[in-house]
Amino acid sequence: MLALGIDPGTANTGYGVVRGDRNGLATLVECGVIRTRPRDPLPSRLAEIYDGVTQLIARHRPDALSVEDVFYARNVRTTVVLGHARGVILLAGHQANLVIHESPPAEIKKAVVGTGGATKEQVQFMLTRLLRLKAVPQPSDAADGVAAALAYVMSSRLPSIASARAMARLVTNRRADESET
Amino acid sequence: MLALGIDPGTANTGYGVVRGDRNGLATLVECGVIRTRPRDPLPSRLAEIYDGVTQLIARHRPDALSVEDVFYARNVRTTVVLGHARGVILLAGHQANLVIHESPPAEIKKAVVGTGGATKEQVQFMLTRLLRLKAVPQPSDAADGVAAALAYVMSSRLPSIASARAMARLVTNRRADESET
Repeated sequence: MLALGIDPGTANTGYGVVRGDRNGLATLVECGVIRTRPRDPLPSRLAEIYDGVTQLIARHRPDALSVEDVFYARNVRTTVVLGHARGVILLAGHQANLVIHESPPAEIKKAVVGTGGATKEQVQFMLTRLLRLKAVPQPSDAADGVAAALAYVMSSRLPSIASARAMARLVTNRRADESET
Repeated sequence: MLALGIDPGTANTGYGVVRGDRNGLATLVECGVIRTRPRDPLPSRLAEIYDGVTQLIARHRPDALSVEDVFYARNVRTTVVLGHARGVILLAGHQANLVIHESPPAEIKKAVVGTGGATKEQVQFMLTRLLRLKAVPQPSDAADGVAAALAYVMSSRLPSIASARAMARLVTNRRADESET
C-alpha cells in the first residue's frame, strides 16, 4: 500500500509518499513541497501544482491519494483560492485512477496521534516516531503532506488485516461493553 | 476574435462561444451547459468539467477564455466547492495557451448593459439584442456563459480597432474635458 498525501496550498503544496507493509510498519518514501511564485497569474500557478502532482503520481505510482480537506480560513478569499488548488489536485488523482480520500484535519490528527484535537507539534512528534525518522520533515507543509499520507495508510490498514471473524468479535465485544455500562 | 465564456458551477457549468468581427458585430457561435451528477464524487465531477472545457477549446480554438469570477455565496462551503470547479477550468485554459480573463459579475454587467448594477433580466435582454438572437439562451447558466464571452469581446474590441493616433486623440480630448470642469 503506497499513499500520496497532499496538503494543498497556492504558494506551497506539501506532499509525502508513505508505504505501509503488512506488519503495520509505515515508511517514508519521499516528501517535499511544490512551490509557486506569488507574482505569477493564478492559472499558471494551478498548472504548476497540477503538473507537480501528476509527475509525483507517475514516478511513485501510489494506490491512493489523501488530500487534506479545506481549512476554513477566516479570510474567505484565501479559502476559495485554496479550493482552486485542491480542484486541480483532485483532478490529477482522478485521471490516474487513484483511490481518493479527502481528509479533514481532525481525522488526520486522530489517525496519527489518537485525538482529533492534537497540536501541530504532537502530530509532528508522532509522525517522526511512527516513520522512524531522525527529524521532523521540513518545511512544515511537507510534514502536513506526510501526515495526510500516514493517516490514510494507518486508517486503511485495519480492515485489510482483520479477518471478517475478528471484526465480528470486535463488534460483539463492543456491544457487550455497551450493555454493561 | 473568438472568446469562450464560462460560468463555473459544480452541477451546471454554462458556456458560450462568441465571435467579434472588426465592424463591432458580435455573433453567438455555440452555447450550452456541462452538467454533472450530484451523486458522483467531486473528483469525477471535476474531471467531467475539465474534459468538457478541454473539448470545447479543441473544437472552437478560441483566442481567449473569460471566466466569471467567484460569487461569494452566503454558504462558504458552496463557494469553496465552486473554487474547485474554477480551478480545473483555469487549468484547461492555461494548458491551451489562451488569454485568460477573470471577470467579476459587475464587470460583465457593465460591459453588456453599461452598468455594473444591472439585473439578470437586463443582461439577458441586451445579450439577446447585441447577438441578434430570437430568444434568450437557455438555460440561464448558458446565458451567463454567453454574457462572460460577450463582455470579453466587447471590452477588448476598442483597443484593436482604435489606431494609436485615435487613442492619443481620445486621451487629449479627455484631458481637455477635465481641464474645463
